[in-house]
Parts: sequence; C-alpha cells; structure tokens
Amino acid sequence: MLLQDFNAEQLAQLKADILGEYAELKSRNLKLDLTRGKPSAEQLGFAQAVLHLPGDDFIAPDGTDCRNYGNLIGLDWIREIWAEVLGIEMKSLVAGDASSLNLMFDMISWAYIWGTNDSERPWGREEKVKWICPVPGYDRHFAITERFGFDMLTVPMTATGPDMDRVEELAKDPQVKGMWNVPIFGNPTGITYSRETVERLATMETGAPDFRIIWDNAYAVHTLTDEFPEIIDVVKLAAESGNPNRFWGYSSTSKITQAGAGVAFLNTSDENLTWYNKHALVRGIGPNKINQLAHAQFFKDAAGVRAVMAQHAGSLRPKFEMVLEILESRLGEYGVAQWLNPTGGYFISIDVVPGTAKRVVELAKDAGIVLTAAGSTYPLKNDPEDKNLRLAPSLPPVEELELAMDGVATCVLLAAIERSEAQANNA
Amino acid sequence: MLLQDFNAEQLAQLKADILGEYAELKSRNLKLDLTRGKPSAEQLGFAQAVLHLPGDDFIAPDGTDCRNYGNLIGLDWIREIWAEVLGIEMKSLVAGDASSLNLMFDMISWAYIWGTNDSERPWGREEKVKWICPVPGYDRHFAITERFGFDMLTVPMTATGPDMDRVEELAKDPQVKGMWNVPIFGNPTGITYSRETVERLATMETGAPDFRIIWDNAYAVHTLTDEFPEIIDVVKLAAESGNPNRFWGYSSTSKITQAGAGVAFLNTSDENLTWYNKHALVRGIGPNKINQLAHAQFFKDAAGVRAVMAQHAGSLRPKFEMVLEILESRLGEYGVAQWLNPTGGYFISIDVVPGTAKRVVELAKDAGIVLTAAGSTYPLKNDPEDKNLRLAPSLPPVEELELAMDGVATCVLLAAIERSEAQANNA
Repeated sequence: MLLQDFNAEQLAQLKADILGEYAELKSRNLKLDLTRGKPSAEQLGFAQAVLHLPGDDFIAPDGTDCRNYGNLIGLDWIREIWAEVLGIEMKSLVAGDASSLNLMFDMISWAYIWGTNDSERPWGREEKVKWICPVPGYDRHFAITERFGFDMLTVPMTATGPDMDRVEELAKDPQVKGMWNVPIFGNPTGITYSRETVERLATMETGAPDFRIIWDNAYAVHTLTDEFPEIIDVVKLAAESGNPNRFWGYSSTSKITQAGAGVAFLNTSDENLTWYNKHALVRGIGPNKINQLAHAQFFKDAAGVRAVMAQHAGSLRPKFEMVLEILESRLGEYGVAQWLNPTGGYFISIDVVPGTAKRVVELAKDAGIVLTAAGSTYPLKNDPEDKNLRLAPSLPPVEELELAMDGVATCVLLAAIERSEAQANNA
Repeated sequence: MLLQDFNAEQLAQLKADILGEYAELKSRNLKLDLTRGKPSAEQLGFAQAVLHLPGDDFIAPDGTDCRNYGNLIGLDWIREIWAEVLGIEMKSLVAGDASSLNLMFDMISWAYIWGTNDSERPWGREEKVKWICPVPGYDRHFAITERFGFDMLTVPMTATGPDMDRVEELAKDPQVKGMWNVPIFGNPTGITYSRETVERLATMETGAPDFRIIWDNAYAVHTLTDEFPEIIDVVKLAAESGNPNRFWGYSSTSKITQAGAGVAFLNTSDENLTWYNKHALVRGIGPNKINQLAHAQFFKDAAGVRAVMAQHAGSLRPKFEMVLEILESRLGEYGVAQWLNPTGGYFISIDVVPGTAKRVVELAKDAGIVLTAAGSTYPLKNDPEDKNLRLAPSLPPVEELELAMDGVATCVLLAAIERSEAQANNA
C-alpha cells in the first residue's frame, strides 16, 4: 500500500515499527560512508601492475626518454590507445596529468582571463556569464561555475538526457557561454544521452559565438553490463554542423587504474587545441610522461582498457544489484522513492519524498551512515524540492553496503512517515 | 692582449685565424643542443629506483591507500621529508603534482581572477599590475607575467642578488604586486642571494598590501661542491617583520629524480595556504599520491635527498669545469666575455661583447650548435644590450660538450671581431 493511502492509525503503527528498526540501527554503532564515487580496494587491485611500471623500460616506442622534460601534449603511445577507446584521431587528443577536473577548471580560467579562440572578449569582461546545468548533476562541476560567479541555469534531466527544448531556448541568450554534461552513465543519474540529444546539442543555435559544451566523459567505458556504450565523436559531429569548436571533451583513467593517479585527456578541435597549447605552454613544460608510459604499458591497446573495465563491471554489478534490490524490497510498496536502474557509472540517484532529503541524510548520519549532503547534486547545493540523494555503492565491501543500504531505506521511510504525519496535522 | 687593443692588421690576422676555425667547425656537421637545463641520461639514472615504486607497497605509513582519491595537500611522508630538506615545519608545506611552474602560474591566475587573501580587489581589476624582474632571469617566469599583461620592471643582478636599492624603490609603488626570484644558484646566473638581500626582501615596505614574492627555490639543493647552501626560512623571517604572507615558496624534485615527473612543493604562510586550498579544492581532488609515495620510499629522509644530490654534483661538476676552462683558455686573454663561476645550479651565464649575443647564437646555429635564443633571459626576450647568453652544460656527454663549447667560443670571438671591425669602419 502506498504511504499516502495510510490512515492515521496505520501510519502510527508503521512509524512504531520503523522507529524500532531505526533504534536497532543506531545501536549497531555503524561507521559507513556512501558519500563519494571511490573505487573499492578490490577494483584498485585490477591495475596493480601499473604501480610496478615503467621500471627500467622508460624509453617510449617513439624513442622518447620519458624521464626527461618535454612534450606538451603527452606521449603518443597513450594518446594512440585512448584515441582508439574514444573512436577519434590521435591528433585531436591531448594526454595530461591525472585530473580531467583540473583541465576543465584551467580551461574555464583561461577563457575567463583571455577569452576562448572564438571570444569577442574574456569571459571575465562580460557583464554576466550564464551556464546551463542539467540537474541532478555533478557537485564538483557546479562548484567550479559557482566559484567563477556564473549564473547557473538548471535544466531537468530526462531519460534521454537534459530537456533539449529548454536547453535550446536557454542557449539563444548570448550571455550563456557554456554547459556542463556527463553524457554517458551520468553523475548521478546513470543516464546516457540519446543520439538525438547529442545531435541537437551539436547542431543547436547559440547566441554566444564562444559557447562551450563541457563534455565530461568520465564514465565512457564504465559499463555494468557486458556491453559498452557507443561513444559518439561529438567534435566531428559539431564540425559537420558548422560548430567546430563547440565541444571540450574530457575523460580519464581515474576509475580505471588509480583514482587520482591516472591519466586525463582532452579531446577537441584543432583550433581549440591550438588555444589550449598556447596557454598550457606558458603554464608549464608538460605532463608526467612516466605515468603515461606506465599506463600505456599496462593497457597495451584499447582492448586492454576494455578488459580492465570488464573486471570493474564484475566487481560493481553485485553492489548495484543489491542496492536496487533493497530499495525495491524495503521502499517499493510505499511509493516513497523513485530511482533509475543504471547500466553503468558510479551512482544511483534516488528521489525521496519532496522535503525529506535533508532529513534522510540527518537520520542516516545519526545512525553512523554518511551520505552525500542533500542538495549536492544541484547548483549552490540548493535542491529546490529537497528530494534528490546520490548513493555511491562502489567503495564499501558488499556486507557493509547491505547494512548501509538497509539503514538508508529505514531513514527514507522514517522521514516520509514524519512528513505524512506533519501534513496530516496541518490539514 | 685585449681585443680592443688590437690594431687593424692584428684584427685582420686574428679574424683570418678564427674564420678558419669556424669553417672547420662547420665542416664537422655537428648537431648539438645547449638550450635547456635538462638532466643527462646519467643523472636521470640516479633515481632509477623510483620507476619501480611503489610496487605493491601502496599504503603510506599513515595508513593512506595512495591508490584512491583524496588528500588535497599531499602525502604526509613526502611533506615530512621535504620540510626537513627546507628546514621548515611540515604544516607550511603542500606537496603537489610534478611542476612547480604550474603552481606559480595557477596561483597568479587565481590572484588575477579573485585576488589574494590580502587583495582589495582581483589583480585583473587593477588598472595596471607591475612586476619586478631581476635580470638576467628565467625565461619561463617572464613568459607568465608577459601572458598576464603585467608591466615587467627589470632590476640588475649583483653578486649578492638583485640590486636591493632599486627593488625597495620599485616596491613602494602600489601597482607593483610581485617579484620573480630564484634565490639559490639562480637561473641563469648561478648567484645565491646573500642573507642581507633576503632580509631586505622580507622586511622592505611595499605599496601593495598584497605584494607577493615568488620564491622559486628550484635549485635549493643543487650544489656543485661538497657543501649545501643555507636555506633561509623566508616565510618565518617575513612573519617576524610583520609581512607573514609575502612569500610564495616553490621547489620540486624535477632535477633530482625525473624531470617533469617528480613532486612539486609550495611552502608559505598558514593564511596563504588556506587561500591556496580554497581554490585548489575547486580545481580538483588532489595531487598524484602514488608518485609522492614512490618518491618518499626512494628518498626515505632528507639525507636521502642530499645523497642523490651529491651524485648529481659528481656528474655535473666536470661539465661545468670544462665549460669554464674553455671560456678562460679561448676567450680570457681577449676580454670579449664575462662570466661567473657558479657553485651550483644548471647554468653558466655569459655576457659577450654588447651587441653581439644574437650574432653569436646565429653563428653557432649555422655550425650546428643550438643555444638558448639571445634575449631569452630578459622580459619580452629583449636584452637591451644584446649581450647575455645562457649556457646549459648538463645534457650533452662530456665529449660533445667540449666540442660545443669550443665552437661557442669561436663564435663569441668571431662576433666580437666583426663588431670591432664595424666600429673601426664607423670611426
């Protein structure tokens, strides 16, 4: 029976039961963390060999002594492998240090200070810069545009990507300079943009000549099934529509090899790369080629990347299945939460009863289960309906995850009951 | 006899001799490069063990699994070791990715966009930003302040550091926001600032409340002798004079382990670190801890760092000695060049006859010897007297270096003779 159909007596009874469960939960003195999308120790072990590399084989196949200075755009070998993974040409790809987030932040900084290659003036000299933010989205993306003082315009996610009617409308404003995207297995929804969504993004008219789509393909190969998603060459697609410089594409091996010690990549148009290199060359000499070489030696080729990802899928799938099972079995009948069944990525996004997300996080915290702060998936940490929660099932071992998720379900239900009671009292 | 004392006949005779040497030099079809301060293959081998680390020992002594995300300020172990090297407290030190130049560029960017913790407004909102540049200096420093459009005010180097009377005068201007420095074994002069110079920098009055001294200690331990220079704790010194936030200190292991794949460090005041972390946290999650761990395992402690540096000194000293010997034996008697005898660092700075530096580089290039472009050691690559050359003896093997330096001496002398002739004809 849906919770909304419970009468006062039934509600009181259910509350008593759930309070009992909650008391028992607290008595266990748990200390569990579901906050961040961190790989588990088991997953980190899949790339253990990287930690022994390059050893004495420090000369790359192209003859580069990777121990010395030089090479702004990264080692050919790792660029070659990654270009194959993304289905693009090597010349469109730069290999950097470990963090793609660093690359995004830096490129927005440079556009802010000097403008992009298509800008009439630096973004920092614009009266106002606005930015399209599909929600729920990635908190670290929103933190960047918040820091730069951009107005963040939210657009709801649908099953096929952001609401494109709304995006197209917003993009007509010349003050709108860009848009965040996690197009494949999105953070936190797990949603993959449909081809139609991608085509509309590539072809739509924008008011700003220097409109930039941040295409954060952090989960491009992070399948939970036996199938890998299609990776659309958005740079090419946009070029064919006369918008060659629209996409800044990012990806990394952070959740493939070592988190925070992998290799990050930028793929974009020739003109954008010329602009990138112009500033990167003043910022420094070049990325860590030793780490790039170690990664190339480990992967060998794109098939090597996919082989590691199959191991990750094998490790993550049971965790995702368990979370979904617990959500269904504990909450399904009451209609107090909606969630998607992601086939890839790192998160499960759950919408609880509006107005209770913060309360759920508080209840969980009091029971020793740390969840990502409610609101984190929205710009300025402001979820206007206070309903979205991001669950990160990867890090804890399965037994802990089961405990944690059962606890979370108890909290979701308890908060929903409290809300129902309050509404009944106000009626 | 000094070249200036040669009569026309003597000059013609010497020119004929040197032209003969130059023709012979060209006939050798050399292909030698003295442009950049790159370690040699022998030097890179001293840290070969790092390339095998961390192997399976990926847990740091403090319990951190270095394979996973987290830790904005870097691994305690490497910070501990490096703090000992610098003679400071670990809490004043951040360990980053490989490049200290990246850190400098980023922090100037952030000051430009948001201002420092002591700024009244972002530097980018100032009518004009000026910057003190000791000359000759490091070309990559000047390239950064050039890119930001700062006015670069040159100050001549003396044997004890930059001309401090001039620096103190310039620093009174509130538009002067900062200053470049390589205080120990400077690039390219090899000069180490005296204690008096350092004290004057720490205590001088500045017009700008947010004046920042970039203290690029790239060569802090890069001795060519058996003695290591004193590393003055400038942050503490400045704090004692009421200027706690004046110094941004930088260093790295780039010329200790792998060039471009080492660990870079920032040392500065608590308030500056808070400011740094505030922006670094939005830029990303944290530095590559795997590489930091590998370095800590390799060094073990500060004595380990100094032991590696003794190996480097052993490798570099004969090269520096040879360069100085050739300069003395080939040029000394003619008075056509001045140079210092550095006891550390990576360069020999040589002042040739004014108006001939570009010509020397051109002559050398035509003979297959690539030198750093004349003017590179000055802001905007503009050496007003066209006299300074930076020689980088580290990379080539000794035999090649001997050939190259002998060739350079021939070019210096030939250019000086050409100049003398031209002056005689004009008289």
